[in-house]
Amino acid sequence: MAGDTPSTALPKVAANYASLTPLGFLERAATVYGSRTSVVYGDVKYTWAETYERCRRMASALLKHGLSPGDIVSVVAPNVPSIYEAHFGVPMAGMVLNAINIRLDARMIAFFLEHSRTRALIVDEEFFPLIDEALAILGSRFTIPLLVIAEEGTGCLDRHIFAAALARGAVEYETFLSSGDPRFQWAPPADEWDTIALGYTSGTTSSPKGVLLSHRGAYIASLSNLLVWEVPIGAVYLWTLPMFHCNGWCYSWAMAAHAGTNICLRHVNARSIYSAIKAHNITHFSAAPVVLNMLINSPSSERPRISHTIHVMTAGAAPPAIVLSKMEEQGFKVTHTYGLTETFGPIAICAWKPEWDHLPVEERARLNSRQGVRYTGLEGLDVVDLKTMAPVPADGTTLGEVVMRGNMVMKGYLNNAEATEESFQGGWYHSGDIGVKHPDGYMEIKDRAKDIIISGGENISSLQVESALYRHPGILEASVVARPDKRWGETPCAFVTPNGDALLTETEVIQFCRQELPHYMVPRSVVFGPLPKTATGKIQKNVLRKKAKELGSLSKTPQSRL
Amino acid sequence: MAGDTPSTALPKVAANYASLTPLGFLERAATVYGSRTSVVYGDVKYTWAETYERCRRMASALLKHGLSPGDIVSVVAPNVPSIYEAHFGVPMAGMVLNAINIRLDARMIAFFLEHSRTRALIVDEEFFPLIDEALAILGSRFTIPLLVIAEEGTGCLDRHIFAAALARGAVEYETFLSSGDPRFQWAPPADEWDTIALGYTSGTTSSPKGVLLSHRGAYIASLSNLLVWEVPIGAVYLWTLPMFHCNGWCYSWAMAAHAGTNICLRHVNARSIYSAIKAHNITHFSAAPVVLNMLINSPSSERPRISHTIHVMTAGAAPPAIVLSKMEEQGFKVTHTYGLTETFGPIAICAWKPEWDHLPVEERARLNSRQGVRYTGLEGLDVVDLKTMAPVPADGTTLGEVVMRGNMVMKGYLNNAEATEESFQGGWYHSGDIGVKHPDGYMEIKDRAKDIIISGGENISSLQVESALYRHPGILEASVVARPDKRWGETPCAFVTPNGDALLTETEVIQFCRQELPHYMVPRSVVFGPLPKTATGKIQKNVLRKKAKELGSLSKTPQSRL
Repeated sequence: MAGDTPSTALPKVAANYASLTPLGFLERAATVYGSRTSVVYGDVKYTWAETYERCRRMASALLKHGLSPGDIVSVVAPNVPSIYEAHFGVPMAGMVLNAINIRLDARMIAFFLEHSRTRALIVDEEFFPLIDEALAILGSRFTIPLLVIAEEGTGCLDRHIFAAALARGAVEYETFLSSGDPRFQWAPPADEWDTIALGYTSGTTSSPKGVLLSHRGAYIASLSNLLVWEVPIGAVYLWTLPMFHCNGWCYSWAMAAHAGTNICLRHVNARSIYSAIKAHNITHFSAAPVVLNMLINSPSSERPRISHTIHVMTAGAAPPAIVLSKMEEQGFKVTHTYGLTETFGPIAICAWKPEWDHLPVEERARLNSRQGVRYTGLEGLDVVDLKTMAPVPADGTTLGEVVMRGNMVMKGYLNNAEATEESFQGGWYHSGDIGVKHPDGYMEIKDRAKDIIISGGENISSLQVESALYRHPGILEASVVARPDKRWGETPCAFVTPNGDALLTETEVIQFCRQELPHYMVPRSVVFGPLPKTATGKIQKNVLRKKAKELGSLSKTPQSRL
Repeated sequence: MAGDTPSTALPKVAANYASLTPLGFLERAATVYGSRTSVVYGDVKYTWAETYERCRRMASALLKHGLSPGDIVSVVAPNVPSIYEAHFGVPMAGMVLNAINIRLDARMIAFFLEHSRTRALIVDEEFFPLIDEALAILGSRFTIPLLVIAEEGTGCLDRHIFAAALARGAVEYETFLSSGDPRFQWAPPADEWDTIALGYTSGTTSSPKGVLLSHRGAYIASLSNLLVWEVPIGAVYLWTLPMFHCNGWCYSWAMAAHAGTNICLRHVNARSIYSAIKAHNITHFSAAPVVLNMLINSPSSERPRISHTIHVMTAGAAPPAIVLSKMEEQGFKVTHTYGLTETFGPIAICAWKPEWDHLPVEERARLNSRQGVRYTGLEGLDVVDLKTMAPVPADGTTLGEVVMRGNMVMKGYLNNAEATEESFQGGWYHSGDIGVKHPDGYMEIKDRAKDIIISGGENISSLQVESALYRHPGILEASVVARPDKRWGETPCAFVTPNGDALLTETEVIQFCRQELPHYMVPRSVVFGPLPKTATGKIQKNVLRKKAKELGSLSKTPQSRL
């Protein structure tokens, strides 16, 4: 070790070393800010002292019910207190939290439960019928020893299946917590590399993978999220982003580090968001672009007067200029980030510079549409040649794969050594996203590797075509995929949702694109209608691709370039 | 590992694990905020890109000059760019930075150089005569292979001894940097437990100890310092706190993490501070209470109009109400922290609560005089019984030793296994400070263990007596130590510096204390005059104790309690 001759080697001891874990944030919040509000859900309100006590009860109850450290505890719930508490209670028992996407179907959920060898399942009442169905699919092939059902008084609970479940040994959530010790002496993980959470990639792909995250990474990701977004102590955070989505980008744990207030929201829509903003003086929230669209397109009668700046972190797609300016008009400051389930949520941020403040909105949108630079807690982020892995020049045009490495990258995939190894090739995690590096060092995603359209040997970024489409005032949403083409291999096929009562024709859209794009990038066909989306609001390009394939086989071979 | 059956164990690999080190903050600042100002010193101004280049040159030059990773590089400099650059340049070469207190004498510095086996020494021109003297003391017994002298153009440099040094092989700082590679490929430490810095305790004690700090701890301490103080990205930090003092409480590294601007200051006094505030729009600085005193007692003609809040972090003693209110009037917001060289600087903070904002100033001062709660990055802070190590009750009165444990505690002392082991007894680092825990969980230091006065079997906190003295409007500074006493064992002896032209008598001071304190705590004797201080502004109680001992042997035995 540097500076230590053998005679002075100084080992790690209890006094000077502790496993990094976000769990200590909760104990600190309870000690320092015990009487401050931790969680609000409708009329339910907890303090940090109470949340700490409830989480200790959960950890204790899990062990009392026969589970062991290392066991997987799955949770199926929207953004209600039980899923927040599980983020601490489960790992405080040394167990691993698996928060499952509530928008999946019973078959997929059954697959996750079995694949993860789930030993306890905590379910919100609204989703118990779904779980009942999933458990029926599993039948006697795979049984879960402990089932906890949270009755939240929404009236969603089907009393018959609830009673039947209780008869079979299920436990009601509050009864379950009551059985635990509020003074339970939890311990940090013996090794900070131990797993704190498992999360399945939401994937538009057919084979979801289970991402394993360490306590160490969760600690660093939580603190980084506070630092890069300059979140103040005592922030009021609205849970629009699902907590089952990369553990709420680690803001679940981060809010405890800063003793913020978590405003829970069962149903995310413009009305519920604006109503929460009005009631709770929200300072921060994170949301997919689809939520921002929802907000700016909601009736103005629903919008409260916002007298302070509300910070919004978005990821998943670049915010278009129109969205950005409309959000700004309403008092929202939008921060654009980028990340993956494999990276604890965001690891890149379009770090805003004060010198950009006074640029025209289109220019600001252009700058803010970039995914930016690495988080403080990530050690490496680059765009590299797909074959050689050499960094691409910072010219804003050369395409390469976005890769990252360091403490904010997952441990690997559960029971999938092949996929783990493949994703870590060459000492970097391979995102599968295609991007460029700008001269100022900011990275910009151009496409998913699999979304690139190859037409007559030319690479076409589907995102670039989509950006052009979004500039049309009559277009609310747009997505572009490859359509098989006998002559060109592939051509761009656009799927478009008109804005409100806008009337559009295929010719009109194509004409518009001709003004905006090089000819070879212009879509050859346009399909109108609502875009299919995944549970997390991502457009399902696989569904669109299927449709485009059908179109490709129907249409005649084009004779010439448009 | 939790959640991983042997078949799915996922090892740390290059893609998902990196040693924690603050060095990456500099690379990130240079990449993201390359053109932003990093360091300002008089007319000298660098950008983050330039600072990164200069630090890479330093690392490269150290290796080119024959040094090896693990070697100790000592720096003797005030807060000028060279010492800032050494905080990155030295560890980027895998070496260990030892920043030496410039206010020490040549004999002490000679001792540190030899004890640390220093292999390279970087010296600011103002302190080169001092070093020349130290090297003469060492003579041929211990020689340092590389001597680098920074000529800063202050005119301080003695041309004769400078020329002589160059003739003996010393190198001028800028020439030295020029010899290094600006694109040097540095690497993070192989093990994050490797030592980044060595710092000698400034100690009022006779045997200074060399504190070894790890890269991991420096990373966590840097980020914690930003979080607990809510330092914004791009803060403008004035270097009033010496960088040789616990590496500037890790703000040296932290400023790079947030791409702030470091305003360097060779001489710290009210005039230079106010002038920097005026010139650079300072947002933050850290300073010992003696500096705050200097500011509020400076002529009002020297004070600029401050139109924004300036955040001041102080440690070493509680800010008295009068200091707090005068600082507030001028636009400073004072945050009270507590820490030690052994804990990377501050590890406790009197975390301010908004609900305290509207209390009267005396009440706010009382709350803010407490050392508070643990930093986000420290895992444990408690006050424990000196014998049993059981936590004392949170009653605000039971005295115990302040102990801490976790990632912000040093690795140990250099070549002093005995002192290391003793300080880590029972799994905690023993601060030697005596404190209480208040009902709200906030800790308050009452005294150094060795400063407690035991009179007739009663423990008297010298700090408590000092607080009473500070409430007297005619007293500028006060310190209380034990005076040996034949009857009572010890009695309190007060040392007092009158405020401005205030006239005070011993009887007056004792009478005042009788109104403020229980009788047994009232000083039996009062000595007037300036208080002797260490280089870092700490009052030298050992000097006062010697004086009190003389008084004790002169005086008659008191016949009764006052």
